[in-house]
Amino acid sequence: MKFASFTRASGAGFGAVVEGGLVDLTGWQGFGSLKDLIRGEALAEAAAYAAGRPVELLWGEFAFAPVIPDPGKILCIGLNYQTHKKETGRPDVDYPTIFTRFADSQIGHRQPLIKPAISERFDYEGEMAVVIGQGGRNIPEDRALSHVAGYACYNDATVRDWQRHTFQFTPGKNFPGTGAFGPFLVTADEVGDYRALPIETRLNGEVVQKATLADLLFPVERLISYISTFTPLAPGDVIATGTPGGVGDKREPPLYMNEGAVAEVEIGMLGTLVNTVISDAKP
Amino acid sequence: MKFASFTRASGAGFGAVVEGGLVDLTGWQGFGSLKDLIRGEALAEAAAYAAGRPVELLWGEFAFAPVIPDPGKILCIGLNYQTHKKETGRPDVDYPTIFTRFADSQIGHRQPLIKPAISERFDYEGEMAVVIGQGGRNIPEDRALSHVAGYACYNDATVRDWQRHTFQFTPGKNFPGTGAFGPFLVTADEVGDYRALPIETRLNGEVVQKATLADLLFPVERLISYISTFTPLAPGDVIATGTPGGVGDKREPPLYMNEGAVAEVEIGMLGTLVNTVISDAKP
Repeated sequence: MKFASFTRASGAGFGAVVEGGLVDLTGWQGFGSLKDLIRGEALAEAAAYAAGRPVELLWGEFAFAPVIPDPGKILCIGLNYQTHKKETGRPDVDYPTIFTRFADSQIGHRQPLIKPAISERFDYEGEMAVVIGQGGRNIPEDRALSHVAGYACYNDATVRDWQRHTFQFTPGKNFPGTGAFGPFLVTADEVGDYRALPIETRLNGEVVQKATLADLLFPVERLISYISTFTPLAPGDVIATGTPGGVGDKREPPLYMNEGAVAEVEIGMLGTLVNTVISDAKP
Repeated sequence: MKFASFTRASGAGFGAVVEGGLVDLTGWQGFGSLKDLIRGEALAEAAAYAAGRPVELLWGEFAFAPVIPDPGKILCIGLNYQTHKKETGRPDVDYPTIFTRFADSQIGHRQPLIKPAISERFDYEGEMAVVIGQGGRNIPEDRALSHVAGYACYNDATVRDWQRHTFQFTPGKNFPGTGAFGPFLVTADEVGDYRALPIETRLNGEVVQKATLADLLFPVERLISYISTFTPLAPGDVIATGTPGGVGDKREPPLYMNEGAVAEVEIGMLGTLVNTVISDAKP
């Protein structure tokens, strides 16, 4: 089953994806958000409920919010595909490279990516995001996948000059309107083996990144185990698993996202995340 | 005026520091936490209320919580004193080095610092923390200090080997029980010019770091302005402004925090933050 978070005039909510739109689950059994539903370990029950119901919100009657609008933690992995590590010139390492995003940098499917007027180096990074189901600390690799609620597409869009102001990535990864997350959560049981999924990023229709999730240098199991050693994971926490080679900043000539550009991240079974770029320049 | 967050058997709360202990402000005018009080711009009103009242919670009748237990954002500054930058061998840079902490890595005054059993390189970093009052984006330097609610001591304790697994600091800075924050918030009006404050860290009574806040390479005004360019600041957000030279990892021989060690961070007017180290090793 697929689940989406949304906003509309009457407020924020979440629902299950069915033919033609959503079954609204906002408030169902007291759950106010998709994170609440995950924390309540009620994804399967909600799926069974929604499967028997007609569509309640048609496509277009709501705006997509980030899949999880309010994750407690967003951990982003750098340099997790050989092709991207090579283009950056970074050495082999024994551990995942980890930085963080604040939740208020996120946007949903079809919401605008916001290019800061102070930079001309706004870049895409297509990624698969993992949403944590059951939380935990010191989770062993062989049980890690049982802690996954599901998967979604992520565009970890980056302000390259601000990322490189120093060797810590925080500034370039946290501008509002840069973390696109959607369209929806596809539950782990529906996905099966995530390694089989192809991932492709397109800018204005041109394929700019292409890989499969089997290419991850540190697979999801290892990421969950490593991360949960130094910080507890909780329901709804997000791990953005890293981007393949082909980022715009490393191309000759470089290829950046300017106003009006359309960025798409498509991952087999997880759908296609589409966002159009606007500028935050004062009119 | 000084404000502290606390826990006791009957739950979490916050209060104003008066002779002998605290005036309990939990629930006062509907404010449930110190962050709520700051968001309500009611620090001055609460101070006036508390000043006329007798002590309600004596020292010892409560445990200190982190000054702000639930900040939306904790931004930590690296390499912000020349003496520390020099001992790490890092080059001069034009921008502050910024990494993040999750709120659940924090502890209060007199709560134990937790040395992970998987590391023998647990280090201190005495710092001054800034607590944001009024939030904002793109805050200019010349108005930045008007966005400060107050200041407190911070020990940004670090698991050095995990900090250096890769060039991103996240893992070594987020183990639970490593971000000591207290004892209390001293409001900006009481502090006056923060640059005049001396800072000193002691390990088992020995002075290991000593500087003044005038030594900050990037002063508080610049930090608030820079950070608020890439992410909105909100009431209760925390900026840990960086540590002076003298960290244990760069000494010959190195000096780490082991079980039973007592770490103190004293900053003039802000009091002394004291924490004793325990191990998370299974007994």
